[in-house]
Amino acid sequence: MLYYFKEAWRKMAKQNIYDNEIFFEGYRKIRDNEVNANKLFEIPALFSLLPDLHGKKVLDLGCGFGEHCRCFVEAGAALVTGIDISEKMLAAAKKENSDPKISYIRMPMEEIAQLKGQFDVVVSSLAFHYVEDFAGVVKDVYNKLCEGGVFVFSQENPLCTCHSGGDRWTRDEKGNKIYVNLSNYGAEGERESVWFVDHVKKYHRTFSTIINTLIEAGFMVEKMVEPIPDKEMLKKYPEYKDLLHKPDFLLVKAKK
Amino acid sequence: MLYYFKEAWRKMAKQNIYDNEIFFEGYRKIRDNEVNANKLFEIPALFSLLPDLHGKKVLDLGCGFGEHCRCFVEAGAALVTGIDISEKMLAAAKKENSDPKISYIRMPMEEIAQLKGQFDVVVSSLAFHYVEDFAGVVKDVYNKLCEGGVFVFSQENPLCTCHSGGDRWTRDEKGNKIYVNLSNYGAEGERESVWFVDHVKKYHRTFSTIINTLIEAGFMVEKMVEPIPDKEMLKKYPEYKDLLHKPDFLLVKAKK
Repeated sequence: MLYYFKEAWRKMAKQNIYDNEIFFEGYRKIRDNEVNANKLFEIPALFSLLPDLHGKKVLDLGCGFGEHCRCFVEAGAALVTGIDISEKMLAAAKKENSDPKISYIRMPMEEIAQLKGQFDVVVSSLAFHYVEDFAGVVKDVYNKLCEGGVFVFSQENPLCTCHSGGDRWTRDEKGNKIYVNLSNYGAEGERESVWFVDHVKKYHRTFSTIINTLIEAGFMVEKMVEPIPDKEMLKKYPEYKDLLHKPDFLLVKAKK
Repeated sequence: MLYYFKEAWRKMAKQNIYDNEIFFEGYRKIRDNEVNANKLFEIPALFSLLPDLHGKKVLDLGCGFGEHCRCFVEAGAALVTGIDISEKMLAAAKKENSDPKISYIRMPMEEIAQLKGQFDVVVSSLAFHYVEDFAGVVKDVYNKLCEGGVFVFSQENPLCTCHSGGDRWTRDEKGNKIYVNLSNYGAEGERESVWFVDHVKKYHRTFSTIINTLIEAGFMVEKMVEPIPDKEMLKKYPEYKDLLHKPDFLLVKAKK
């Protein structure tokens, strides 16, 4: 079971950790938690970057359980296409977040050039750090967008993706996190990490590479967000104070 | 002497560490070193981002000894204005890097709105991390640029400016640097550090804030660079391998 992912990855050529049973159940659990970093920081930031969706055609890359797709419909989107590589995820999406305006398609995001038609908005939540060929996907997104179309995505912050083994934090004698043990930020490429299962492959890219890749594809970068808690948030959720040392997420809005 | 800078800063309202004797001599020494991080990484990256300067009017913010101003003239610039807050620096610039096409003006960069005329290119090398009101300076640069004008600057990398006390590195038992002790990356603002003299004030801003400030002023971001050594460079200068953990510089090219 431990090597399921590696096997699957080799077979499918694209990474599909979400169809690994252990991973799926672990992931499902954190997504269902009443409060987590996604719900407090990533999702609000992602939605704050979206344009008005009324009457828009939206493509969601790595749509997972489809919660965002349903939100896009509720926000007025005319048509939503959610793609994901995981059969398990899409089965849950179809069951829990079905709507006549949403089509769920099983497809790795590296193959979106095959989709018919164009989109007004392309969104992707926390998926790109699993993608090896980021430049290729960004080019395809550019081609799939109408003129003036908007691309909004979130991914793990480069201060997280650079991690390549060893303890992530230095703690004081009381156990408080005092330093992020940052290493290899300048050395881009594959990382293997343990997240519910062994051998989850992630790809580290610097801030510069992420932004330059968008610009080289033809995009105009409109905004970057690295969400951290404000004072009010810290009072309510003091456990998130460590985000002041290292934001977990990076979000970017870009325009064609 | 130790508090000279603080006194001077209070008096002048803008930070002018370069007129502190100890600082000036220490700085002069590292600038004169045959090989240093500026010469190997920052300067080549800065010049690689510049447009063709033939016939152009160039403004250099924090021109220091004027070496760059002279290079701009050699690269074909029609007129170069170098501003700096330090009298000592400008005295050296006028002595060592004088040219009929160059005007050196003593002025804090927060006051460039007072300069007459407009510029085709505005450059700044390693000065912005000393500037508190970055957004104000960026707005002024935007106003001072012709339509289509180019803004290129370097500053300390945000992975450096965030440092707020304590050891910068964790080392292994042999003394090799294994981790950058990253802290407070998300907590922007003033830092006090020791660099030749005590109490040099720097201002930390995240990657997002730097980029968003440019965009909000009206700029289109064209490229970001975080220089690190390539294999060839590492072979020649193995002492710079730690830049793979943490680049020292961030450079940005933006267009009006």
